[in-house]
Amino acid sequence: MAKPNASPVRVIEETTGYWRAVFDYPPFNVVDGDVFRALQDLLVRMETTESLRVVVFESALSDFYLSHFDLTGRLGNVMSAIGPTGLPILMDTFVRLTKVPVVSLARIRGCVRGVSSEFVLACDMRFASRENTKLGHPEVGVGLHPGGGGTERLPHLVGRGRALEIVLSANDFDGDTAEQYGYVNRSLPDAELDGFVDALARRIGSFDRRALVAAKHLVNQVSLPPFDRLLDAFTSFGTALGWPEAQNRINTVLGRGLQRDAGFEKNWPEVLGTLVETGKKGVGDDSHS
Amino acid sequence: MAKPNASPVRVIEETTGYWRAVFDYPPFNVVDGDVFRALQDLLVRMETTESLRVVVFESALSDFYLSHFDLTGRLGNVMSAIGPTGLPILMDTFVRLTKVPVVSLARIRGCVRGVSSEFVLACDMRFASRENTKLGHPEVGVGLHPGGGGTERLPHLVGRGRALEIVLSANDFDGDTAEQYGYVNRSLPDAELDGFVDALARRIGSFDRRALVAAKHLVNQVSLPPFDRLLDAFTSFGTALGWPEAQNRINTVLGRGLQRDAGFEKNWPEVLGTLVETGKKGVGDDSHS
Amino acid sequence: MAKPNASPVRVIEETTGYWRAVFDYPPFNVVDGDVFRALQDLLVRMETTESLRVVVFESALSDFYLSHFDLTGRLGNVMSAIGPTGLPILMDTFVRLTKVPVVSLARIRGCVRGVSSEFVLACDMRFASRENTKLGHPEVGVGLHPGGGGTERLPHLVGRGRALEIVLSANDFDGDTAEQYGYVNRSLPDAELDGFVDALARRIGSFDRRALVAAKHLVNQVSLPPFDRLLDAFTSFGTALGWPEAQNRINTVLGRGLQRDAGFEKNWPEVLGTLVETGKKGVGDDSHS
Repeated sequence: MAKPNASPVRVIEETTGYWRAVFDYPPFNVVDGDVFRALQDLLVRMETTESLRVVVFESALSDFYLSHFDLTGRLGNVMSAIGPTGLPILMDTFVRLTKVPVVSLARIRGCVRGVSSEFVLACDMRFASRENTKLGHPEVGVGLHPGGGGTERLPHLVGRGRALEIVLSANDFDGDTAEQYGYVNRSLPDAELDGFVDALARRIGSFDRRALVAAKHLVNQVSLPPFDRLLDAFTSFGTALGWPEAQNRINTVLGRGLQRDAGFEKNWPEVLGTLVETGKKGVGDDSHS
Repeated sequence: MAKPNASPVRVIEETTGYWRAVFDYPPFNVVDGDVFRALQDLLVRMETTESLRVVVFESALSDFYLSHFDLTGRLGNVMSAIGPTGLPILMDTFVRLTKVPVVSLARIRGCVRGVSSEFVLACDMRFASRENTKLGHPEVGVGLHPGGGGTERLPHLVGRGRALEIVLSANDFDGDTAEQYGYVNRSLPDAELDGFVDALARRIGSFDRRALVAAKHLVNQVSLPPFDRLLDAFTSFGTALGWPEAQNRINTVLGRGLQRDAGFEKNWPEVLGTLVETGKKGVGDDSHS
Repeated sequence: MAKPNASPVRVIEETTGYWRAVFDYPPFNVVDGDVFRALQDLLVRMETTESLRVVVFESALSDFYLSHFDLTGRLGNVMSAIGPTGLPILMDTFVRLTKVPVVSLARIRGCVRGVSSEFVLACDMRFASRENTKLGHPEVGVGLHPGGGGTERLPHLVGRGRALEIVLSANDFDGDTAEQYGYVNRSLPDAELDGFVDALARRIGSFDRRALVAAKHLVNQVSLPPFDRLLDAFTSFGTALGWPEAQNRINTVLGRGLQRDAGFEKNWPEVLGTLVETGKKGVGDDSHS
């Protein structure tokens, strides 16, 4: 259980140029308003610490990197308040991470779904455990859709066909499939993951700030999605949260154990294809093309 | 042989949300005006059936998914008539498929070349038989170039270098190479292909229409080529059909057995590098850069 | 040692439609002003030879394809003079290569770093030796950043995450990793590389010029970076050459043997993480986000 007032993100300063940010928010590292507040605080430190070159984002929990958006509604101000970029806090956090003059590496073990996938997609690089990664976008399976950049960032990384598979299937992707698709940079044997990422972080930590910042800026110029597309997705996601069919599915997965039962929490995308009876729907459906 | 008046595309309604569309147009599933008319009819049904979530496109012929554009000229109105999008029927068919509020999966076995590759590229996802896939763009080898979106959709999926290899080599690509390049989502053992695609279709078929439609729409916003680029390619293709060197190569492959001989039809890209003598050309060539 | 007045690029006309351009500039095929002058001359020949279809770019040296930008400053006019496209010679050379009405294939063996990586990225296709390829962007490791298109071309090919890894890690990538990332088209066993590329070149060499040119043009329309982005990177690179921390790192690697010692030249990116002491920097750093 989380200690009262403990931050969900613990920062360890390995050197003046290399920090580790550890998600430590038991039992499941669910992404709620407190996680976003901690990330906003960390971003300010990253933006203003001149000695800093690189931050590795990792988890203290073996089975959960970050699990997913809090579906019980403890979201604080992330959907409504506006951050320094002029975007809502949820988007602002991810957009600032892509532009901060510090390199961000995601060291991935465990479950990383929905908004958590969007967090790692906003990191500069992603390295995943071959044996212990469940990465994906289950939103459509609970009647919603990604709203924090997933639909905008995935097509550039993996192409339209694989982006549609990830988003419309609502399935988990293991480390090797994620590597094959380009969803992560590399899938590494779990025993090699820490050493690989640490060596890379120390190497980057030894480089000059101006060179790193200029290079990241140039790559960003041709690879980041435009604000208006990100905002479209976010706005549409806000609307979707009010759809009755989504609320019905969310209540069903919460009732079955989401955010309570560890076994269900690890594997819940498996059941999304059987939440409602099929072949009987279609009456009164409202759609937009 | 095709039965008179039989549609080249047979629709099987597995559930109210999941249909299979089976190309059944012996002997080779050649793409002619009748195939486009059947696809146009199917698109209207897909656009207006509220219960529908997903259509799997597959073939009844083991060696041919869709072979290629009819090079004997039975093209009906596909190059001249304008469809609902304001684009010529050939482009209109593919553009509407990318935007229809229904998910499209291509289950690929056999030969899929030229305009047929462009059909699967317009589907939302592509799954190919590891042992039995010959996918490619032989157009340049007969003096033409892709005109139905191949040159616009491939670079986004596979990058400029591999797109140029696919288009300029005029070679076939097997399932595993197509997967490695990102040309298809996955290459699967032939024995597992049907089960994989059927499970995915039933899963997607159980999801809510609004969620699927909104998610597809958002991915489309950042991954579809612009109309004017598609139209450039189509117009240039129409011009190329009149080039004498193209007509010469087309007549040569038709003379050797294309659209008549099953053995030649399966393997014809293999001979495209030896259709004309090399080292003796170059006089009076007309080119545009 | 290079013979006086010998061109660093030797052209072998295999047929009227297929040439080989061989980098032969011992000891390391360093990219200096003379190499760019030879490439500019070759581009004029490629642009004006109507019989030509394809050029294979390869090296006469087994360990070096092209090593990297001359860091001792023998750059001639490549940073200052303006070429036919209106861009500085360095950019002009690469931009013209992407648009020339001839297909360019890079047959890669040995070291290919920095501006040399940018050369192969400007070729239409890249095929690499599985056993003998060291491809990468070490610029950031010497305090600079890519300035000849690397930061603009890589994200389209490999996605933002892998582009940032290549550019910010300053590490070498072997043939198989480059293939996995989409950095090269294919990694082939060294013994098969010559045969594969030669067969592909002869095949393309047999095709009609108009078809090849139109197809390449259409792919280019949706896959080349805009001029202004390329120029941003080039201008920023020119500025970076004057940064004191970059000059310090460059002098350090030159002092350790770069462009003099073959052993160091083969492996120098390995030491870039230890050129300066870490954890002590950060005072007075100047940065731009």
